[in-house]
Amino acid sequence: MIENPFYTPEFHGPYELFSLGDFVLEEGQTLRDCRLAYAAFGELNGAKDNAILVPTWFSGTHQILRDLYIGPEHALNPEEYFVVVVNQIGNGLSTSPHNTPGNFASGPRFPKVRIGDDVVAQERLMREAFGVEELALVVGGSMGAQQTYEWAVRFPEKVKRAAPIAGTAKNTPHDFLFTQALMDAITMDPGYAGGWYETPADVREGLVQHGLVWSVMGLSTEWWKQERWRPLGFASAEDFRAGFVDAYFSVLDPNSLLAQGWKWQRGDVSRHTDGDLSAALGRISAKTFVMPIGEDMFFPPRDCAAEQKLVPNSELRVIEDISGHWALFGFETTFMEQVDRHLGELLAS
Amino acid sequence: MIENPFYTPEFHGPYELFSLGDFVLEEGQTLRDCRLAYAAFGELNGAKDNAILVPTWFSGTHQILRDLYIGPEHALNPEEYFVVVVNQIGNGLSTSPHNTPGNFASGPRFPKVRIGDDVVAQERLMREAFGVEELALVVGGSMGAQQTYEWAVRFPEKVKRAAPIAGTAKNTPHDFLFTQALMDAITMDPGYAGGWYETPADVREGLVQHGLVWSVMGLSTEWWKQERWRPLGFASAEDFRAGFVDAYFSVLDPNSLLAQGWKWQRGDVSRHTDGDLSAALGRISAKTFVMPIGEDMFFPPRDCAAEQKLVPNSELRVIEDISGHWALFGFETTFMEQVDRHLGELLAS
Repeated sequence: MIENPFYTPEFHGPYELFSLGDFVLEEGQTLRDCRLAYAAFGELNGAKDNAILVPTWFSGTHQILRDLYIGPEHALNPEEYFVVVVNQIGNGLSTSPHNTPGNFASGPRFPKVRIGDDVVAQERLMREAFGVEELALVVGGSMGAQQTYEWAVRFPEKVKRAAPIAGTAKNTPHDFLFTQALMDAITMDPGYAGGWYETPADVREGLVQHGLVWSVMGLSTEWWKQERWRPLGFASAEDFRAGFVDAYFSVLDPNSLLAQGWKWQRGDVSRHTDGDLSAALGRISAKTFVMPIGEDMFFPPRDCAAEQKLVPNSELRVIEDISGHWALFGFETTFMEQVDRHLGELLAS
Repeated sequence: MIENPFYTPEFHGPYELFSLGDFVLEEGQTLRDCRLAYAAFGELNGAKDNAILVPTWFSGTHQILRDLYIGPEHALNPEEYFVVVVNQIGNGLSTSPHNTPGNFASGPRFPKVRIGDDVVAQERLMREAFGVEELALVVGGSMGAQQTYEWAVRFPEKVKRAAPIAGTAKNTPHDFLFTQALMDAITMDPGYAGGWYETPADVREGLVQHGLVWSVMGLSTEWWKQERWRPLGFASAEDFRAGFVDAYFSVLDPNSLLAQGWKWQRGDVSRHTDGDLSAALGRISAKTFVMPIGEDMFFPPRDCAAEQKLVPNSELRVIEDISGHWALFGFETTFMEQVDRHLGELLAS
């Protein structure tokens, strides 16, 4: 166990823990006393048909989803819906490398978790804790989109609507390499010490390089050219790198990032259909809006559009944003306007 | 000095050395006994008006330009033109970190060289060695495009035609970060030892990470998805990474890559006009074909097109190629067809 003040209610606001007991993973290992950290907003109605599930993205927690995406001014409106944000396994708040006791399943020995494990765990949470049998909507960005697709394919009868934002149903070879570059940036730091570092600060050089690779792929060429860090309050590109990118990643647990990276690389709903992606996506009965971001460099609209064509009751809704993938942080005010418009339309349908 | 068998005529075929004597650089240091390695093909005619100059790209030498771009079947036809390929300073064959004697200007202490230094040196080569006062064409890819722009702006009266392929006149902030990620991948390897490694093999982990970042940015998402490594004779993506990417970078001198990277980051013809890019490009009198590559992720057509609009007598000629930037290696047979068609048209105009 590594004490990390970032992964606490002091930093994240209140959240609940749902215990799954011993949870057997797809890869065959068991997470002992596995817990999902989640935060719920709004109230479940009597018919239990107003629940929305929002899974988290790589490096993210419920915090940014709560602060940016959820509220009475948004489509994810807690006055109307029961919105549950579930932290993915390994993200630092749910059961994760740094908060697992002992030496045999912690740190770099943390069991391999797949997207499917998260979705199975989330289904139990919704059913066992709340008695929810059908979700009005599953919506998530990036790795949250991977979980959204997994929900819609694995539990088609439980997902009425789905909105994968800036993510794919089957990870691409290029995306695999990008994620590998992010991961190797961490592990090649001698301070990583095979994963047995004492504190994330020991891996600071690796986390900086991790952030640099993110800076190149997470934001578009045009975002940098037009100096869109300026309206965010930074004085220079270097200032943004230090004050946003490095600050953001420096507090995170490196093994947590690696656990999520491994999972991200292997997101693939066609595991349900012997590798047949068309058959897997053909299972989806949810009304689905596939929502890539225009300038995304590693989940490009091209890849998302190809998958959308395989989803029966779906539409392609491209979000135009200069930021690229990190549009998900809401850097541009026009981002949430588009998200809310599309999700509002989807929820009304 | 580090013995490196890669930087020899055994590996590169014959080339000549042109001595510049002591060469004072823009940044203020002096390269003692500076030498340009070059290879010439064809014969200079009596009027001395059939010379074509081809500068090299990051990590490249005259070898690939000779083998892929030059020949009687190409626009760069030695039966018609006198084609001179000049290795950029720091590339391992011209004066470079590893072949500079002593400890004070070698390895990591190699002086900072700019694109402008290369072009000044190349102009002396062409004039002093061959008496060439005007070039029929300057053409280069990537950092070769940076040198091409520098030629056309610095010596407008000496450049009749120019063809910058997959490169920019003023480096972009995003491109700067990408190059930084490539460089930091090398320097964060403990084997780099502040630049005083004994052999490139000491830096092998850094060179592998360098190659991985290249793999993500140098080739398009679609190239990887369509498994375009297959027609190149590789059995898998990993096979391509090991057999092409890692093999390619592992023999190169790490300090050479860093010297070129520093230079790449700072390519900017507007240094001639107090930062006014429009004024700098407005100086160009050469008939210019600006030739970005369609899928290029760091010299995207958008950036190249914006510059092309500022060049008086120019046309935008986008090369369509699934490979992205590394199309320059000629992975697709349709690449050289397009290059030859555009250059042939330019030379005929």
